[in-house]
Amino acid sequence: MRTAAALIIGNELLSGKIADANVVVLARALRSLGVVLRRVVMVLDEIDVIAEEVRTLSKTHDWLFTSGGVGPTHDDVTIDGVARAFGTHVVSEPSMESMLRTYYGEKLTEGHLLMARMPHGARLAASKSMPWPTVVMNNVWILPGVPEIFQAKIPLIAEELGADKPFISHAVFTTLDEGTIKPMLDRVVSEHPDVEVGSYPRWSAVEYRTKLTFDGRDAEKVRTARDAFAASLPEEAVVRVE
Amino acid sequence: MRTAAALIIGNELLSGKIADANVVVLARALRSLGVVLRRVVMVLDEIDVIAEEVRTLSKTHDWLFTSGGVGPTHDDVTIDGVARAFGTHVVSEPSMESMLRTYYGEKLTEGHLLMARMPHGARLAASKSMPWPTVVMNNVWILPGVPEIFQAKIPLIAEELGADKPFISHAVFTTLDEGTIKPMLDRVVSEHPDVEVGSYPRWSAVEYRTKLTFDGRDAEKVRTARDAFAASLPEEAVVRVE
Repeated sequence: MRTAAALIIGNELLSGKIADANVVVLARALRSLGVVLRRVVMVLDEIDVIAEEVRTLSKTHDWLFTSGGVGPTHDDVTIDGVARAFGTHVVSEPSMESMLRTYYGEKLTEGHLLMARMPHGARLAASKSMPWPTVVMNNVWILPGVPEIFQAKIPLIAEELGADKPFISHAVFTTLDEGTIKPMLDRVVSEHPDVEVGSYPRWSAVEYRTKLTFDGRDAEKVRTARDAFAASLPEEAVVRVE
Repeated sequence: MRTAAALIIGNELLSGKIADANVVVLARALRSLGVVLRRVVMVLDEIDVIAEEVRTLSKTHDWLFTSGGVGPTHDDVTIDGVARAFGTHVVSEPSMESMLRTYYGEKLTEGHLLMARMPHGARLAASKSMPWPTVVMNNVWILPGVPEIFQAKIPLIAEELGADKPFISHAVFTTLDEGTIKPMLDRVVSEHPDVEVGSYPRWSAVEYRTKLTFDGRDAEKVRTARDAFAASLPEEAVVRVE
């Protein structure tokens, strides 16, 4: 099973100035590629902390995706953190420099050129639809924090990682609460070990009180678990099966 | 400086089924109490992983807040994880049991009673406005994942933690990009060491291109840094000062 982690970087997230919007986008994309996102860590703009997390998370997962801290200002320290994690230094990448010179023309400043920085030994991933490249250092994808750009990088990631057997997901919605369905649920969980079963109560419920999810890579097994659970409930308590 | 961490628990978040809504709520609340949220970790419904994170994060921060995994079903393992982190076992708390018996009456099941579980040695925090108590184990607040209920716990947290000197936040909005303002920004950052300066580019900008934030506990110093920065920009490039 291929695994991934995400490192979300930025003081603005931990101070509550803005809400992260990238985790759910990455999580959905990885899920559809059959990659398990096992851990997300959110930290401040601190080089040492970033370096330590990158070192640990990149060792323990097939891929690590970082989000944020890649601009040219003092609080953008992700490139430095990744370089430090791998015991290397930061270089200015010639082809990115040249793109910046073309783009900014005579308005170009030293500040703009900082956007060409990358850890020594990193590679650039690019696609036709996205001319500005993405820096990849070993198994670490360094992504921007701005949600629109983060999202635009997903097709490139999908292309590079390639698809594995995707996860199949089904659901049962019931009017019963978790305490009531627990015995039926426990039985399905123990009898269908290859299916991951989730139970999500709804607070301000109008239509249903609990949503049960059934996930796995074997479509037949997932459907069988879902149907077994639905059949174990009183018929009138089943609102919907998906 | 008082510090906190958050541990966000749930397969549904890492699979992208739903987007977390609790981090930003907690972050804002802590900020207003003068507490620095230093780290957020998001993990799957796995007891060992939860226990390990609780052990580490509770040692290295003044408070740890967990979110999710507190219902009665098989995927609710937070109570067990916290108990394991502190080397203790889980008990059924009599006053919560009694509330559950009253609430469910003759519909009560063994499943419902599981919601009275807590780590041995934990205490209950409650307020008049919220009769159902919150379990607190040492410095770990065990909060529910359902956003409406999570949010409803915030006043109780605020009451218990008490206010420290809050953070003051100001901002400057400019039409200039980060590369262009970098020299002015670097000067303000180095001349105002007690003020935390953030720079946030906007992608689909209509009104402004970059938002600069100035944060700190000393209102006078924060305003001075903001004004020094705004004065260093060409007047027509300043869209707004907050």
